[in-house]
Amino acid sequence: MTADRLVAQVAFLNEADKLKSIIRASRLHDNSRFENSAEHSWHVMLHAFVLAEHAPEGVSATRVLQMLLLHDIVEIDAGDTPIHGDVDAAAQEAAEQLAADRLFGLLPADQCAAYRALWDEFEAAESADAKYAKAIDRLTTPLANMENGGGSWTDYNVTLDHLDARVGTPMQRGAPAIWAWLRPRLAAWFDGRPS
Amino acid sequence: MTADRLVAQVAFLNEADKLKSIIRASRLHDNSRFENSAEHSWHVMLHAFVLAEHAPEGVSATRVLQMLLLHDIVEIDAGDTPIHGDVDAAAQEAAEQLAADRLFGLLPADQCAAYRALWDEFEAAESADAKYAKAIDRLTTPLANMENGGGSWTDYNVTLDHLDARVGTPMQRGAPAIWAWLRPRLAAWFDGRPS
Repeated sequence: MTADRLVAQVAFLNEADKLKSIIRASRLHDNSRFENSAEHSWHVMLHAFVLAEHAPEGVSATRVLQMLLLHDIVEIDAGDTPIHGDVDAAAQEAAEQLAADRLFGLLPADQCAAYRALWDEFEAAESADAKYAKAIDRLTTPLANMENGGGSWTDYNVTLDHLDARVGTPMQRGAPAIWAWLRPRLAAWFDGRPS
Repeated sequence: MTADRLVAQVAFLNEADKLKSIIRASRLHDNSRFENSAEHSWHVMLHAFVLAEHAPEGVSATRVLQMLLLHDIVEIDAGDTPIHGDVDAAAQEAAEQLAADRLFGLLPADQCAAYRALWDEFEAAESADAKYAKAIDRLTTPLANMENGGGSWTDYNVTLDHLDARVGTPMQRGAPAIWAWLRPRLAAWFDGRPS
């Protein structure tokens, strides 16, 4: 029984290695290369943990860490979707559902169900934990772009209005204190941007 | 107060981005490149979480995740030490202590103290949580090497005796059920290794 479970769990963990080869639209702070979704997952978790004191009351940092640990695994099959790009949202969602079926399906049934429920909760972005996790997932790229000279904002011709919609809306919902701190810094960056 | 704390916390989070550029001796499962310490941190956390049911009684998966989130950050200044390489252990430990002073020192004092205590606990490898975290940290490279044709075992001429000492000892201390499952698989791999 233990051995059977370990075989299934290790099959999942081995498959998860592929997340290190999923390349995002965001770049490292030193602008040396694009970021992959595995190292991004670690960095988002670190942000969620370090900034947990600024989360709305009732958020469980523990559950948020678990959610963020799993949140991008579906990209192994479905790929990463740049938030400033044009995508077919319905097609992307369908691909992610299939990816979740296959990838979490590698695990023992009880674990598959638990992890799928956690990922579904993250995707739904309705619970306080999921809203905070989603907000922090949107925070890391703006912080990187302010360090690396614009990064994906330059690549996608992103404006401050655009950021208010795509980053501000989820951050206002899930981490308003952090957004209140960040927003004037973003405005100053866009003001000083070379034209 | 909130703003001052956020400035310090974001300085730490920005500095932590450099962990994505610290290259380890281990390779990805598809053998396409060496692994970096940020993506490794994510993958180790996933292993610790998925395999938590096999941990000794009393281990807190929550604390282990927090420990592993932080465990390699000192490598930003001190570099990664391949476990099969020859290193000056005292010099490496001194470098890591200085790195911990500088990096955790970027945070507000209360957080610096809490994170340093967690990292010190991991390094000491005496608590049940730290022993499990250390065991899982040793598990990921053997799993990768069995997938990628030998990887760092080939690079460092590693034998099964060597693995028993460097991997078996900490795994036996912190995750004996997983080691009992893994050991015959490692033996079979070394038996079938092309000479």
